[in-house]
Order: sequence, then C-alpha cells, then structure tokens
Amino acid sequence: MTRKASTSALKENEGISPREMTNVNAISKIRARRKKQKSTQEIVTAILSGNMTALSQAITLVESKNPKHLEQANAIIKQCLPHANQSVRIGITGVPGVGKSTFIEAFGTYLTGIEKKVAVLAVDPSSSITKGSILGDKTRMEDLVKNENAFIRPSPSGTSLGGVARKTRETIILCEAAGFDTIIIETVGVGQSETAVHSMVDFFLLLKLAGAGDELQGIKRGIIEMADMIAINKADGENLKSAKLAKVEFNRALHLYPIKASEWQPKVITCSAIKKEGMEAVYTIISDYLKLTVDNSYFYKKRNEQNKFWLLQTIEDRLKSEFFNRINIKKELEKQLNLVENNETTPFVAAEYLLGIKD
Amino acid sequence: MTRKASTSALKENEGISPREMTNVNAISKIRARRKKQKSTQEIVTAILSGNMTALSQAITLVESKNPKHLEQANAIIKQCLPHANQSVRIGITGVPGVGKSTFIEAFGTYLTGIEKKVAVLAVDPSSSITKGSILGDKTRMEDLVKNENAFIRPSPSGTSLGGVARKTRETIILCEAAGFDTIIIETVGVGQSETAVHSMVDFFLLLKLAGAGDELQGIKRGIIEMADMIAINKADGENLKSAKLAKVEFNRALHLYPIKASEWQPKVITCSAIKKEGMEAVYTIISDYLKLTVDNSYFYKKRNEQNKFWLLQTIEDRLKSEFFNRINIKKELEKQLNLVENNETTPFVAAEYLLGIKD
Repeated sequence: MTRKASTSALKENEGISPREMTNVNAISKIRARRKKQKSTQEIVTAILSGNMTALSQAITLVESKNPKHLEQANAIIKQCLPHANQSVRIGITGVPGVGKSTFIEAFGTYLTGIEKKVAVLAVDPSSSITKGSILGDKTRMEDLVKNENAFIRPSPSGTSLGGVARKTRETIILCEAAGFDTIIIETVGVGQSETAVHSMVDFFLLLKLAGAGDELQGIKRGIIEMADMIAINKADGENLKSAKLAKVEFNRALHLYPIKASEWQPKVITCSAIKKEGMEAVYTIISDYLKLTVDNSYFYKKRNEQNKFWLLQTIEDRLKSEFFNRINIKKELEKQLNLVENNETTPFVAAEYLLGIKD
Repeated sequence: MTRKASTSALKENEGISPREMTNVNAISKIRARRKKQKSTQEIVTAILSGNMTALSQAITLVESKNPKHLEQANAIIKQCLPHANQSVRIGITGVPGVGKSTFIEAFGTYLTGIEKKVAVLAVDPSSSITKGSILGDKTRMEDLVKNENAFIRPSPSGTSLGGVARKTRETIILCEAAGFDTIIIETVGVGQSETAVHSMVDFFLLLKLAGAGDELQGIKRGIIEMADMIAINKADGENLKSAKLAKVEFNRALHLYPIKASEWQPKVITCSAIKKEGMEAVYTIISDYLKLTVDNSYFYKKRNEQNKFWLLQTIEDRLKSEFFNRINIKKELEKQLNLVENNETTPFVAAEYLLGIKD
C-alpha cells in the first residue's frame, strides 16, 4: 500500500502500512449484526404480523437487565397494548409429578386443533439455567414445540417473584399482540407463585392426582380456594376408580366454600393427559366460565382489578425493598427482632424505632 | 387586695383587683383530677397486682390519640412485658347470628368455674359508639360481665384495621400482666379482621351453624383453612340432627387440607352455647392443642413469628400510608389508574412513574 505524495507543505514521514485485516469479513459481519438490531417500530410491526422471531426478540428485551433494552421493551409494549387483551389467560398449577407438562402438551394440542393460537409461559422464581425451569425441558412437550400455532417460553430467570411476575405479565401482552388468543401460564405448586399467577389470569386450573387423603399434602393452603376448576389427572387404568372417588370428594368440599365473586361454581373433572382424554371437557368448562363472566362483566372487572393490584404491588414492593435495603436498617432490624423475641420490646415500639432511623 | 408599696425606683400604677374566682372549688377539683392521673409506676404496680381499674386506665391510654398518653402507654407496656405471655390466646369468629356472644358467655363462665381468669377482647374495625361494636352490648354477656374473674373490653374504635389490631395486641399484654391466663379475642366474620386476629392468637375457633350447604355463605374465603376447631353451635332441639350431619361433612372437608405446620388436625364438634352444652369438650380440645404445640415447640415458634409479622407489618403499613398520602401522589395515582384501565400504559410503567415523582 503506497500513499499519494502529499501536496501539503507539511512533511510527513511515510508510515508503516497497516497489517492486512486478520478477518476480511469482519466489516460485513458487524454490518449484518447492526442490521439485525431492529428498531422498535420494526419489532412492533413484525409482532403485530405474527412474526415469532420478533416476539422472541421483544421478550428477550423484557427479560434483559440492560436499562437500554428495558427502555426499548417499554416502548414496544406501549405500542402493543392497544392490540393486546384479546385472549383468555389460563393459570395451571399442581405439585411436581401431577403431570403439568403432559397436560399442557395434550390441552395445547387440542386447542390448536380447534384453530386456537396457544402461548405457554411459566412463572417459576426458583428456576435458573442450571436448576432447570419447569418449561426448560421442552422435550416433555414434543408435539406442541413443533406446532406452528403454539409458542412456548420458559420462565424468565430471577430470584425475586416480583421480577419474574412482572416479566411474565409483559410477555402476556406481547404474545396477545402477536395474535395468541389462549395464554397458558404454568406454575409450580409451591411458594407464593400461585398467588402471583392467580393475579394475572382469568381462569385458574388446579391439577391433582387421585389417591387417598394425603394426596393433598404438598399443595399450599389456599390454592383449592383459588381454583375455578380441579382436574384430577392420570384418571386411567387402575387409577380410574380412585379418581372418580376423589372427584366426588372434591365436589363436596368445593360446595362448602362460599360462592365466588365471579358467581362461578368451581368444577371438578377427571382426565388423562397422557391418553389425551378429557381435553374437550376442560375446554368446555373454560368456555362456560368465559360466557358467564363476560355476560356478568366479572371478566373485565377482574382484569381491571388485576391491573390495579400490580400497580400498587409494584409500588409496595419497591418501598419495602428501598427501606429494608438501607444499611442502617439492616443493622438495626436484627437487633430489634432479638429484643422482640426476648420480650424486651413490642413489635410496634420496635417498628417505630426503625422507622425513625435517619441515614 | 392591696399591693406592697414598691421599693423599686420604677413607679407602677396600682392595678385593678382581680375578680373573685367564679368557682371557689376549682383548685381542689383540679388537684383531685391531677391526683387521679396516676404515674406510670403506680399503674404498672396496680396492674401487676390484678387491679382492674388500673388495667382499664392503661387500656384507655393505649387507645388514646393523645401522643402523651401513647408515650405513657408504651412505658407501661414495656414494664408489663416481662410479666406477659403467660396465657393462651383464643380467637373466635363466625358470621353474625351464629351466637358468638352467647358462646363466649357460656365458655367464659365454664373457664372461670375451673379457676381460669378470662379476658374477652374484640377486633371490629367497623365499630364505633353509634354503630355498636360486637362487644358493645355487654347485656348479651350478663353473667360474665358480673364475674370477678372475667374482664370484658369492647373493640377499640378506629377505621383502620391496622390501628385496631395494634391496640388489641397491646391490650393482650396488659391483660396478661394483670394475671389473665385465658385471652379470648372475638371478631366478626367479615373483611380482613380474621386474618389480623389469626395473627395474634394461639388457637383459632370458627363458630358455625348447622344447616344445608349454603349455611357457609357469608364466611370469608380462607377462614376454614385458618380454623384449629370448628364448633357447630345451636346443636339442640330440631337442629341436633343437621348439626351432626354438618359435623361429618366438615370433618371430611378438613381432611382434604394439607397437614398444618402445627401438626394439629383441626377438630369439629357440636355445641349449644345457650344450653351451655359442649363447653368442656371445647376446653379439652384446646388443652390437647396446647399440649401438642408446646411439646413440639410450635406454640413458641408461632408467637415469635407473629411478633415478627407485626413488626414488619407495622413498617409496611407506615411506608405505604406515607407514600400514598403525599399530595402529588394522590393527584397522579388516579390519572395513572385511568391510563392503565384504558390500556394506555402498563401497571409497571405507571408504578415507575409514580415512584419517580418528587415533591
């Protein structure tokens, strides 16, 4: 490489020629990568036309920890909002081993067979790549994962339920904008995650197993009361008889509860997800529920209340975390808890003391 | 009245004599009143010796809105704390008409008959003098009110459950320091008050009526799960048969729930408070519960957790009320809720906006 002789009066020594680039394709690669980073408008347009790649990209932005990504995610969601909310959101819970994945595989396949578009999400705050989230092992949903009218997304990672719930709520909006009319949200039968899922779905389905009395252990207290339907799974072969008995018992128990604000009387059915039996019955019950609650306006009222709940909950979570993460509060809280434990102060006096601490 | 001639160089005109006092007894009256305002130490000593007047005075200080009174109340409670906690705290709930007052009259009388000292308190945030609190009408507890081993105090007034709960928690301590070994806390079967009471008692008793299916309406969801015992009241005369049936049904329903952390299997009994039948059975069950939970340490663990709960709850309540009472937040919250309702923003974006408002 030779330079053109300088026409300037300033003399410049001839330099060393730069090395040949080690990767001759680098520039075109960088250009291609830049091109792949679509604009907000491009992503929104693609989502609204049902493009799955754009949907996945937007969800990745929602799940990112990069503030710039979150800013773009918020802009995308804002533009998707007018196209969202046209769906039924179904929460599914049950203890490990009850057959949630198999059930979703069977139910989701049934739904796509009747022209529904199904998005399957998960809320599992304990999940991480190494621990393996409940939807992480997509091989348990072999058919659904290949189905072009289904979209499966594992739980976003994160240790805080609040964070996971937020990401899932926003992912619901993106999926709805992409044309999914049935959103299934799976959660594990432990901890507070059911309550969070219950606060983001229209219909709450509890999966159970047949068996004697103690089959109910391991289900968190209060879950039965949340359920709009209990489906007793694995009702096949030798289990059939006990499943039918369990159905009678649960029906009796559910009638002991007060009538729900939805005016819906929770239903109990038996099914066998592995044999794909009972899926139509599940769908019929959900349709009945939708008809009732759309007619009596509870459907819309509940969604409004859920929105209000998440607004207030987000604020409360933040106020708490800001307070309890203050270094001086962390130090003093432990001391005050000890004083309370030893009956040297009351919880209220201790609280006043902590609230009075200035940093 | 004549003045002594001034010895000062400054001349002072002779003033007008003050009027004779219109009430010649005022000074002695004020002195008497001051004398009645006992010192903290006097009140504590009197409480510890079981003086009911001092106990009532201290509770009045706890319930006062005067900051000086509250300061004195805190000082009294602090000195009472080492003498408190020697009791069993029993929560009682049930819908209006189930016979709570009659039950407490019968059960309290039974307890004093076996040498117990019984304090009856109430948590009813809706109560006020005009509305009439659940324990306001003491005539429904004719015997107990005259019983020298019983102490009855209606719900403190106040519209906030948090405030009422706090006052009741502190009153429990005062009653225990005064030697009451059985604290009964009554609450109405509506709203959040059961949850508050559940968080301050060792044992939770749900009163119910016999009858077909719908007798359970009107009981808040989740209450059955909280109960350590369900007593089906008015099990007499024509009701006896249906009460026994209800007992079978509830027993079945309770067995569907997971085992409690206390390892206690909730019991169902029938009783007739008006005929004073079943009171010994109630007492025996509570004694069994105490034996189990003291032996397995759950009793102490639960009290510790309750203390921790109230400490954190008090802080959370205050953080929330301070935030939401800010004038700019009040203004903007309504707007943001409307935007969320019209799908123009998400609950999370709205929350971020509100959290970012500086006054």
